[in-house]
Amino acid sequence: MNLADYCTELGKRARAASQELARARGVGKDRWLRLAVEELDRRREAILAANAADLERAPQYGLSPAQVDRLKLTPARLDAIAEGLRQVAALPDPIGMVLGGQVRPNGLEIRKVCVPLGVLLFIYESRPNVTADAAALAIKSGNAIILRGGKEALESNQALAGVLRDSLRQAGLPEDAVQMVAVADRAAVTELLRLERYIDLAIPRGGESLIRLVAEQARMPVLKHYKGNCHVYVDRAADLEMAQRIILNAKCQRPGVCNAAESLLVHAEIAPAFLPRAAAALREQGVELRGCPRTCELVAQAKPATDEDFAAEFLDLILSIKVVDDLDEALAHIQRFGSQHTEAIVTGDLSAARRFTAEVDAAAVMVNASTRFHDGFEFGLGAEIGISTDKFHARGPCGLLELTTYKYVVYGDGQVRG
Amino acid sequence: MNLADYCTELGKRARAASQELARARGVGKDRWLRLAVEELDRRREAILAANAADLERAPQYGLSPAQVDRLKLTPARLDAIAEGLRQVAALPDPIGMVLGGQVRPNGLEIRKVCVPLGVLLFIYESRPNVTADAAALAIKSGNAIILRGGKEALESNQALAGVLRDSLRQAGLPEDAVQMVAVADRAAVTELLRLERYIDLAIPRGGESLIRLVAEQARMPVLKHYKGNCHVYVDRAADLEMAQRIILNAKCQRPGVCNAAESLLVHAEIAPAFLPRAAAALREQGVELRGCPRTCELVAQAKPATDEDFAAEFLDLILSIKVVDDLDEALAHIQRFGSQHTEAIVTGDLSAARRFTAEVDAAAVMVNASTRFHDGFEFGLGAEIGISTDKFHARGPCGLLELTTYKYVVYGDGQVRG
Repeated sequence: MNLADYCTELGKRARAASQELARARGVGKDRWLRLAVEELDRRREAILAANAADLERAPQYGLSPAQVDRLKLTPARLDAIAEGLRQVAALPDPIGMVLGGQVRPNGLEIRKVCVPLGVLLFIYESRPNVTADAAALAIKSGNAIILRGGKEALESNQALAGVLRDSLRQAGLPEDAVQMVAVADRAAVTELLRLERYIDLAIPRGGESLIRLVAEQARMPVLKHYKGNCHVYVDRAADLEMAQRIILNAKCQRPGVCNAAESLLVHAEIAPAFLPRAAAALREQGVELRGCPRTCELVAQAKPATDEDFAAEFLDLILSIKVVDDLDEALAHIQRFGSQHTEAIVTGDLSAARRFTAEVDAAAVMVNASTRFHDGFEFGLGAEIGISTDKFHARGPCGLLELTTYKYVVYGDGQVRG
Repeated sequence: MNLADYCTELGKRARAASQELARARGVGKDRWLRLAVEELDRRREAILAANAADLERAPQYGLSPAQVDRLKLTPARLDAIAEGLRQVAALPDPIGMVLGGQVRPNGLEIRKVCVPLGVLLFIYESRPNVTADAAALAIKSGNAIILRGGKEALESNQALAGVLRDSLRQAGLPEDAVQMVAVADRAAVTELLRLERYIDLAIPRGGESLIRLVAEQARMPVLKHYKGNCHVYVDRAADLEMAQRIILNAKCQRPGVCNAAESLLVHAEIAPAFLPRAAAALREQGVELRGCPRTCELVAQAKPATDEDFAAEFLDLILSIKVVDDLDEALAHIQRFGSQHTEAIVTGDLSAARRFTAEVDAAAVMVNASTRFHDGFEFGLGAEIGISTDKFHARGPCGLLELTTYKYVVYGDGQVRG
């Protein structure tokens, strides 16, 4: 079979499975998740062996030590995968939820009901744990999923997909609801992105270049989560101790993730009192500081920052810093350099808080809290497939509800339109 | 200025206006709508003169009589436009609506708040009344709009846009929140569809070829409303009198619109009792019937139907008819030929109604009611910009709420992540 036919076959099978899955009850989907946990436990050795084979080939793909670490599965990481499946099972089933409704004056009963999107195409890099997370969220929300992992993780992913598919069959659900692309050829992604007839949504998860590639090639909608160039703005009316605690947490608690802070803005009036102490605390955590001229005057160890620094998502222990004259300058800076992901203000001034939350255009705007809270678990929404920086369909954490759409169900007793 | 620069300038102005408009209060937006009604009244003569100029040129564009009729403005049609503006003013403002929220165990207060999408690009054909409708919905939902109407209506649209822009200024709102593309060149659409930086959503309204063209070229999301090949399925357990009333209404009350029925499916057991009478009533309304072999046996006047007939959106007094053995065959036919717009079942059988509403994948599924009810007004949602056959972001009637997105606003008192 050639590549185009192979991809079309994946799409057709996914579409057929999604139609069956859309009618599945919550109890069946949760049974699948529990069976998958058991099957995962039974096949531990085989999965670890498949992963060992991937790890052995890692040098030939030129993976960095950090990438090798992300690729690696251990008994503890398999436990974490199982725990993730259990957590999804514990979430409420969104399908069939009534999102709204009314009885019209003519007696028509109108309900807006949550239904699955259909078929998802999930394109990701070399973290095998994502395979199980993504499949769990897809199936629980009634969607079939086609998984396209990195070639470096092919054997690990195949082993995990085998667990998920066999458990689907055991649970009486269509095993093609989870399919793993078995071809390493990059052209498979291009082929799949043409199949808008069979695939309702493409979700790329990885670097910006992967996301741009998918967005350009896809004929179906794409759920994008671009970079997070997140700011913490310390207002004139900030509690300076709180501000220091928040920027330290936002920058240092987990610097490699999209909701970590990359930039600090400080009101000029409190900069002399705040910046030297905060800079010392950040330096103590190993943070490299790159500042505007006023910052460099106050903080000897800061290097001069360029516009590229202000635009950068470092994902590392590096922080850009700018002293601003007022809230307006902070808002203008965020509008110019921000990535509409997460922005925070530290202030005790109600009017400043209200203006910041109203005028900053971002998926999440925080007042007196760390940017690190912007995720599905911390927002109480449960597991997520990513954090959308799109405005269309879903913004911010994308969990079960964001993988659904709705339909209107209307009951009458013979109404016709006059 | 060349075309690309002109379009970029439109985009930049729209983006700047949208940022101002996002902060506008409901009272200001509603004042604009009332001022526009007054201004429309004052400029009646000028608008009708502009329309007369368009009408004079209509023959050189080869417009059909129906198209000329749609292009034509009359005092009564201007009254209807004004009434549309008043109705939008009377709708509640969606912006700032709290869509959900909670206080987390750590004390973080999380709110999901409705915000505008930003800038809309609306591409439509030669109905000038749509100009005012679309602008009213855009501005009321806090969005700037770039309008691209058909070249046949250019003078009428410019006159109407002038009213809308001048009233924006009178209301203290940015006049660039409404901009009309002044160039007839089709290449302008191509240019605009590249400006994902300045335009958040493209909305084509017109024939399927226009929508496909926009969907292919657009780099931003597109809100699509493809055709409505809507079915009425008369189940074995239908009240036959009700069924006849519903198919007559669904087919004949306004055959040229997307929620009119194009196809009738009839359960084999009741076909002999139902079809000859229903066919006679339809024929009396001037409906041409195209049926499957079993239909043609029961209805002498029916011509044989092809697969093309079953796939067609006639938008005319033509109906395809198929006799089916059971609900399963009806569902399979709808899955094969339906356009996911509006599907109806007539039945007294609860189990059939439940299966039909659960298994039919369409924006609206009606039980014992005419397909013609599927629109924003009839659903109690107010004016709409179209009926989406997409699943992503918005499905079914697209009114004010569907032109918005949301952001998360989080208030804390110094929380950091552990």
